Amino acid sequence: MNGPLRRPLLAEGLGTALLLAVVIGSGVMAERLAGGNAAIALLANTAATAGGLFVLIAILGPVSGAHFNPAVSLALALRGSLPWPRLAPYVAAQLGGAVLGAWLAHAMFELPLLQWASRVRGGTGQWLAEGVASLGLVLVVLRAPAGRAAGLVAAYIGAAYWFTASTSFANPAAAIGRMMSDSFAGIAPASVPGFVAAQLAGALLALPLHRALGALPDTPP
Amino acid sequence: MNGPLRRPLLAEGLGTALLLAVVIGSGVMAERLAGGNAAIALLANTAATAGGLFVLIAILGPVSGAHFNPAVSLALALRGSLPWPRLAPYVAAQLGGAVLGAWLAHAMFELPLLQWASRVRGGTGQWLAEGVASLGLVLVVLRAPAGRAAGLVAAYIGAAYWFTASTSFANPAAAIGRMMSDSFAGIAPASVPGFVAAQLAGALLALPLHRALGALPDTPP
Amino acid sequence: MNGPLRRPLLAEGLGTALLLAVVIGSGVMAERLAGGNAAIALLANTAATAGGLFVLIAILGPVSGAHFNPAVSLALALRGSLPWPRLAPYVAAQLGGAVLGAWLAHAMFELPLLQWASRVRGGTGQWLAEGVASLGLVLVVLRAPAGRAAGLVAAYIGAAYWFTASTSFANPAAAIGRMMSDSFAGIAPASVPGFVAAQLAGALLALPLHRALGALPDTPP
Amino acid sequence: MNGPLRRPLLAEGLGTALLLAVVIGSGVMAERLAGGNAAIALLANTAATAGGLFVLIAILGPVSGAHFNPAVSLALALRGSLPWPRLAPYVAAQLGGAVLGAWLAHAMFELPLLQWASRVRGGTGQWLAEGVASLGLVLVVLRAPAGRAAGLVAAYIGAAYWFTASTSFANPAAAIGRMMSDSFAGIAPASVPGFVAAQLAGALLALPLHRALGALPDTPP
Repeated sequence: MNGPLRRPLLAEGLGTALLLAVVIGSGVMAERLAGGNAAIALLANTAATAGGLFVLIAILGPVSGAHFNPAVSLALALRGSLPWPRLAPYVAAQLGGAVLGAWLAHAMFELPLLQWASRVRGGTGQWLAEGVASLGLVLVVLRAPAGRAAGLVAAYIGAAYWFTASTSFANPAAAIGRMMSDSFAGIAPASVPGFVAAQLAGALLALPLHRALGALPDTPP
Repeated sequence: MNGPLRRPLLAEGLGTALLLAVVIGSGVMAERLAGGNAAIALLANTAATAGGLFVLIAILGPVSGAHFNPAVSLALALRGSLPWPRLAPYVAAQLGGAVLGAWLAHAMFELPLLQWASRVRGGTGQWLAEGVASLGLVLVVLRAPAGRAAGLVAAYIGAAYWFTASTSFANPAAAIGRMMSDSFAGIAPASVPGFVAAQLAGALLALPLHRALGALPDTPP
Repeated sequence: MNGPLRRPLLAEGLGTALLLAVVIGSGVMAERLAGGNAAIALLANTAATAGGLFVLIAILGPVSGAHFNPAVSLALALRGSLPWPRLAPYVAAQLGGAVLGAWLAHAMFELPLLQWASRVRGGTGQWLAEGVASLGLVLVVLRAPAGRAAGLVAAYIGAAYWFTASTSFANPAAAIGRMMSDSFAGIAPASVPGFVAAQLAGALLALPLHRALGALPDTPP
Repeated sequence: MNGPLRRPLLAEGLGTALLLAVVIGSGVMAERLAGGNAAIALLANTAATAGGLFVLIAILGPVSGAHFNPAVSLALALRGSLPWPRLAPYVAAQLGGAVLGAWLAHAMFELPLLQWASRVRGGTGQWLAEGVASLGLVLVVLRAPAGRAAGLVAAYIGAAYWFTASTSFANPAAAIGRMMSDSFAGIAPASVPGFVAAQLAGALLALPLHRALGALPDTPP
């Protein structure tokens, strides 16, 4: 691996691993403590995920852009913000990191490292939800004012955990990592292709919408 | 539609649609998960709404001002911040967006698209609450320091969900959108006129209060 | 009332009124919805109070300094940041605003306007807690970096609702307003003098502590 | 004590004391109110801790760097950001402050001042969790952009309360203070050495990871 790519790939792998450890770990903790109230569990899972995303984007953004998400990397490559030769290594680092992050969460909670989720997710409502969630996420990434991406992405995902019927994976790497955890955050392997297809469709639709909204302000904010 | 208005109207329509999808969608999710505890449901609904508003204002504010609210657009027109010829198209985009947003939430949660809310809201306490909520919202919009409107409006609405007896619609477009959802966030059609009248009254009262507080600082912050 | 004082007093009165409306109103709403779980009610009350404080300080700070609190005004007068002739009018505006804010909350929730709280609060633990809470609050006010007071005071009070045994009134005007509400946030009239004495003692102790910490940085932040 | 050190040590002692008062006090309050739902109690404990950390770092950071944590001070000494002669006094101030903070929480809640925790914590999962939590914390401290450490550390610890199996002490001084409180936040004395060893190991591992990620940005954030 050449020098210029080593650090960004470390950042993408580390960031995606920690993101998945946060999502899965806080899901395990929340389910253990919530006494069966799924809303309380999802509130805790939401707060932890938003806090973790905020921190990971802020500290790793300067190294790799802090995508942690193949759909985001693809969208940025399509609009010329990520050099095409970086796309495959970025995605590989993200997918590898996601699996390691799931295993890290399992190790911390003394669960079997290797698991496959049994929770089936899908149907037209959830696929639409993943499309909407991913479109919104890519729009936030593309339009966030300089230096504000960390807070905006965190707030967006926090809201999307609740307003989308799928609790907003919005990230193929997250789907892969969560496929390997039979816990609150899990998704059955057979449900992953539908989710990933919807995520990629949503991410791609964000590009023309971003262009239609225009790059330059029309009215002051 | 001419060029200068196309992008702001797209932003107002898209933003209001997503705002309503967040409000209604998170209400549906919260009610499904909360096991009957309305405080937990409203906490989740509050967090999602505040997060969503923060993001939508930050990314769409530079395009249209991010009103998403006919009462705000009217107040800004009255004080000269929105050209009068833009008012009607802005309001139309907001109302159309609100309805589409309700339908988007229903589609994601696999509910019938077309619904009419059955939840009656009203009485002098709730009308006073809508007036106070809207007065406060317009005051925040008028007095927010440059670049801080997104965070302040989000925090304000988050607080107003709890301190007003009406859970703070504070937005005629939100009332129209929520009228079309028979869910946690719904409002019966017969209750809408009272809410909208109170919202407009509150928004208008914010203008003289804003003037009385003065445009220029008296003491450093 | 002369010109220079009219606007700051309006800001102090309005801000304290809305602060009390937020504290008491969200307390009423939270108690109604929480199904007897006091932790959920206090969580909602905390979130609403922190959000409200953040907004009120940000939009009214440039007009009056946004004290909304006689103990803060006294501490600032003692260190020369508030001219002494302004202290009495500020305190009068704060106390009057607090009572009006309690009544506004009652009107919104269709409760009797005039009430006297029955909830007894006191004992050495709670008095110590009020002293600690007020010392901390004044320290935050005195040491907040420029432009960050709104967020820091809101976060501080949010934490203090939970870490102090008294749920952190930390404000004589809040004690007066909450004395006039027989609700979740209420405090019996006989309990007010002890709370106010502890608040003033804590606020005064913050001044030497602030001096001991030094005005100038020793190490970069 | 010479002049240059007096103020930083006061800041480290005061800050660590207030941090422990927040952690333990909010734990006591949360357990009293939560009606046996541990998730609600931990949510409240999390919110109070994050809010408190945000404020303490923001107002004391300019005086001492706001470590409040021997593992952070050690890591900063190793990379040359804290002069070695300051390390021992910093750690002494932190440990002394932690004990005083526990006692302050007990006094406010009218509990016996001197207590020893009975809650056993440990096992490979929790030790791994403490290592991960501390590695992450030191990485955040080392990589936080200028002026953003307070918000990032607060968000990080808030997330770490949930995603680590140990609820993330990540701080030897916190372990000592919490050892002296037989409450929600307590840790049995026999469990402290394992936690502290894991914390120091995690903190030390953050240094090479920080170097591997590079000091200079490769891609704009």
